[in-house]
Amino acid sequence: MEYLSTLNINNIFDLLGTFAFAVSGIRLASYKKFDLFGAYVIGLITAIGGGTVRDILLGVSPFWMHEPSYVVVTGVALLATQIFKTGLFRWGKTLFLFDSIGLGLFTVVGFEKSLAAGYPFWVCIMMGAITGSVGGVLRDVLINEIPLLFRKDIYALACVAGGIVYSVCHLIGMSALVTELLAAVTVVIIRIIAVSMNIQLPYLK
Amino acid sequence: MEYLSTLNINNIFDLLGTFAFAVSGIRLASYKKFDLFGAYVIGLITAIGGGTVRDILLGVSPFWMHEPSYVVVTGVALLATQIFKTGLFRWGKTLFLFDSIGLGLFTVVGFEKSLAAGYPFWVCIMMGAITGSVGGVLRDVLINEIPLLFRKDIYALACVAGGIVYSVCHLIGMSALVTELLAAVTVVIIRIIAVSMNIQLPYLK
Amino acid sequence: MEYLSTLNINNIFDLLGTFAFAVSGIRLASYKKFDLFGAYVIGLITAIGGGTVRDILLGVSPFWMHEPSYVVVTGVALLATQIFKTGLFRWGKTLFLFDSIGLGLFTVVGFEKSLAAGYPFWVCIMMGAITGSVGGVLRDVLINEIPLLFRKDIYALACVAGGIVYSVCHLIGMSALVTELLAAVTVVIIRIIAVSMNIQLPYLK
Repeated sequence: MEYLSTLNINNIFDLLGTFAFAVSGIRLASYKKFDLFGAYVIGLITAIGGGTVRDILLGVSPFWMHEPSYVVVTGVALLATQIFKTGLFRWGKTLFLFDSIGLGLFTVVGFEKSLAAGYPFWVCIMMGAITGSVGGVLRDVLINEIPLLFRKDIYALACVAGGIVYSVCHLIGMSALVTELLAAVTVVIIRIIAVSMNIQLPYLK
Repeated sequence: MEYLSTLNINNIFDLLGTFAFAVSGIRLASYKKFDLFGAYVIGLITAIGGGTVRDILLGVSPFWMHEPSYVVVTGVALLATQIFKTGLFRWGKTLFLFDSIGLGLFTVVGFEKSLAAGYPFWVCIMMGAITGSVGGVLRDVLINEIPLLFRKDIYALACVAGGIVYSVCHLIGMSALVTELLAAVTVVIIRIIAVSMNIQLPYLK
Repeated sequence: MEYLSTLNINNIFDLLGTFAFAVSGIRLASYKKFDLFGAYVIGLITAIGGGTVRDILLGVSPFWMHEPSYVVVTGVALLATQIFKTGLFRWGKTLFLFDSIGLGLFTVVGFEKSLAAGYPFWVCIMMGAITGSVGGVLRDVLINEIPLLFRKDIYALACVAGGIVYSVCHLIGMSALVTELLAAVTVVIIRIIAVSMNIQLPYLK
């Protein structure tokens, strides 16, 4: 019973995160004057790209090929951007929150899937960061921009921090639920602080 | 006997489609002043990129690693562009027809390979479109242009339509040959109509 | 005993090659004003990208997920570029030598891994070239430049030549060690001659 309710909360966050990731892709595609189909594809790749690369590296079948909800949610995101237009931009902060929660959840999912596959912590941390950030990198490559990941904000590093927190909690024997929560919250908080305080890493000399 | 003749026709279309896809890659590479080797690689990736991504997503060994004809046909395409130069451009319409037929065949091959692997129709439709269009996307990313797929023409959508036709024919119990033909012809006709009438999807608001 | 010493020499070259590949990625990232984390990621992808794509095509688990040294060496490369700055540039020729030796070794490793998986020579030659050159292609795509591979220098072609030498030596029954050495030296020499004499392939007409 409790497991089921956890699962449902996970699912809701998963869909909200997917929605926010898809909107970020569709929004950037609209700046580049993509057509509706192109915008949908960019939105979908932004949402599922990270998990797909993770699954290919882990040697398992990509998650979205067994669950149509990601394809559907991206369609809803496209519809929402067309109906609400500037209205959706006014929800900028809500979308950013969804995006951050999605990032936290994607990190935890990527970490746990790799741990279950028997990989050591350092691989799990990388897979968590790949799950969270590669979708945005693919989006930026496809719209022919240098990936934001490499130039701005603390994004993938927040995933790395979340992965380290997961590793430590797991090592000292915390329960799965607390471990997941602490790791995801770490990602969300670091991401929110970095953006709201405009914290960036030093440039390369 | 009949099976064999079908197989041979399939093979001929497969090679013609590969040739046309390779030429489109080599042509764009020449605009960017690539050297001969670079043009060959771009031609090859255009021709086999879609099927390779499909096979990786399906978890099977990429098709071209078991059949040297794709590597050879791309070499013939490079030779042809060097020998006939502008002559090949005069064949623009023939090449476009090859390209369209190739697109139709690639869509059907991608659909059937996914169906045989046990995936539901919506995944098969996506895999058909990926087989037909991802090679061109990889080509455009490598020559550092925004993928045409996202901005112009009805290309991947023609594959999607072909996949839907295949699904319906399969569901109502049509024979494999008729199903394949109807699906491929759908792709070819939509593609030809879209290009000759310059039909495009609306831009994103 | 002898086997172990060969292994150690291989390992040293592998680490030197990884170091040189990573530095080339970090250096280009610094021109694009990437932050430290972005530069690290670009360095890592340059170093392990080719072998990762090869392993995905071969259907085996990516090599670096079972051996943390690549992740560590890339960190050392980042540190070195920050500490020595222009000093490291003065080592340009040494780095180029490391890079060439790494290319030769990566080619041999890619060839042998494919041969062991049962693939014919032409696939092994392609896998050797993919191992050596795809990391640099991914680097160039991510920093939003047309891949150097397609425009300048003889790079992947040196890998192809090394693969052909390996195939011939293997066919006429030479010992594994001599075969490996001749193939790797072929890559290194062609690469050094091409760069020092500024030999390039003809452009496409």
